[in-house]
Amino acid sequence: MYRQVQSGGVATAKGAATRRRIVEAAAAEIRERGTLATTLDDVCRRSGTGKSQLFHYFPRGREQLLLAVTELEAGRVFDDQGPYLDGLDSRAAWADWRDTVVRTCRDRGPHCPLGVLIADVGRYGPAAQTVTAQLVRRWQAAIRVGIEATQAAGEADPALDADRTAAAVVTAVQGGVSVLLSTGSADHLEAALDFCLDRLLLADAPERT
Amino acid sequence: MYRQVQSGGVATAKGAATRRRIVEAAAAEIRERGTLATTLDDVCRRSGTGKSQLFHYFPRGREQLLLAVTELEAGRVFDDQGPYLDGLDSRAAWADWRDTVVRTCRDRGPHCPLGVLIADVGRYGPAAQTVTAQLVRRWQAAIRVGIEATQAAGEADPALDADRTAAAVVTAVQGGVSVLLSTGSADHLEAALDFCLDRLLLADAPERT
Repeated sequence: MYRQVQSGGVATAKGAATRRRIVEAAAAEIRERGTLATTLDDVCRRSGTGKSQLFHYFPRGREQLLLAVTELEAGRVFDDQGPYLDGLDSRAAWADWRDTVVRTCRDRGPHCPLGVLIADVGRYGPAAQTVTAQLVRRWQAAIRVGIEATQAAGEADPALDADRTAAAVVTAVQGGVSVLLSTGSADHLEAALDFCLDRLLLADAPERT
Repeated sequence: MYRQVQSGGVATAKGAATRRRIVEAAAAEIRERGTLATTLDDVCRRSGTGKSQLFHYFPRGREQLLLAVTELEAGRVFDDQGPYLDGLDSRAAWADWRDTVVRTCRDRGPHCPLGVLIADVGRYGPAAQTVTAQLVRRWQAAIRVGIEATQAAGEADPALDADRTAAAVVTAVQGGVSVLLSTGSADHLEAALDFCLDRLLLADAPERT
């Protein structure tokens, strides 16, 4: 499981609760202010813990805490998108998923947590890159399954390589979020997703009844 | 011109040279260590200037300096890509451009400067978002011109909206760079660009002679 990969020394239920409180506080700060502006002091203040407590659970400090937040936010994104991702087997389902992604990213605006974290956290080094690469793979695999199901249902181009197409879709979302973070506009996210779905889905597929 | 948008108080040639030295030092630090890890102290040390000098040229500090670096790096990217962007009017030219983008991003690895900066700088607020939105628009416009030229040459699908397709291509590159920064791999950049070009270019176009 992702959430425990970077768990540090958590021996008791109370310890686990404190660790969780620190991670939730960091996630909330990052959502409100962004990764760059969030300091460990902010996280201590918000979680009601001291620096020494924080370093007990996160001996490698900021990098390790950001990884834990990434895992938390990734879990939330997969929980949110799960119902849509699991049912990706028709043109209608892809349209719903596309609308959900655009709406979610637009509503969360410049602090779309997972987009920010995937972009920031991987830069810390090989350990962080392993975690973000896992997230990208997990996300891509879920989309690949949807592409294969839609191909099997006769509503997606069977000539497309499902895994490579899934990689392009993940990249489109990540790029759209990146432009959203930079410019405040979700137009590129929409254009890129529509472009992918236009290529993926068969225009002349029969309507489902 | 972009380079002068955030120029601060530069009254003399010597002042302009000092300002430029600070910006180049910041750009070099960011290329080597990333935006997150670069401090104003690092920039002062590398450029041989003092903090008070730095704040003379960049009264708004870190944000303003990052904007200046973004403009510098954007100018370099457009200088590098200019010859390829200007000639985008055939399938062969798109293939060359695609290879150049992938090679450049792969070689620069996790510190691809413009990708990093577009992702980071826009988060500082409306002023920074204006600069990054301008860069995205300029880049998208160059690609749109190429799409239109390729459509006119009969080698790209004439049914595609050139501007919206250009938005999708820009988003694919930005997403590919974002995943490269997070995971260290350029595979997603390649997959996303190939997916865009597969949709854009006509497979049965006559070979150029």
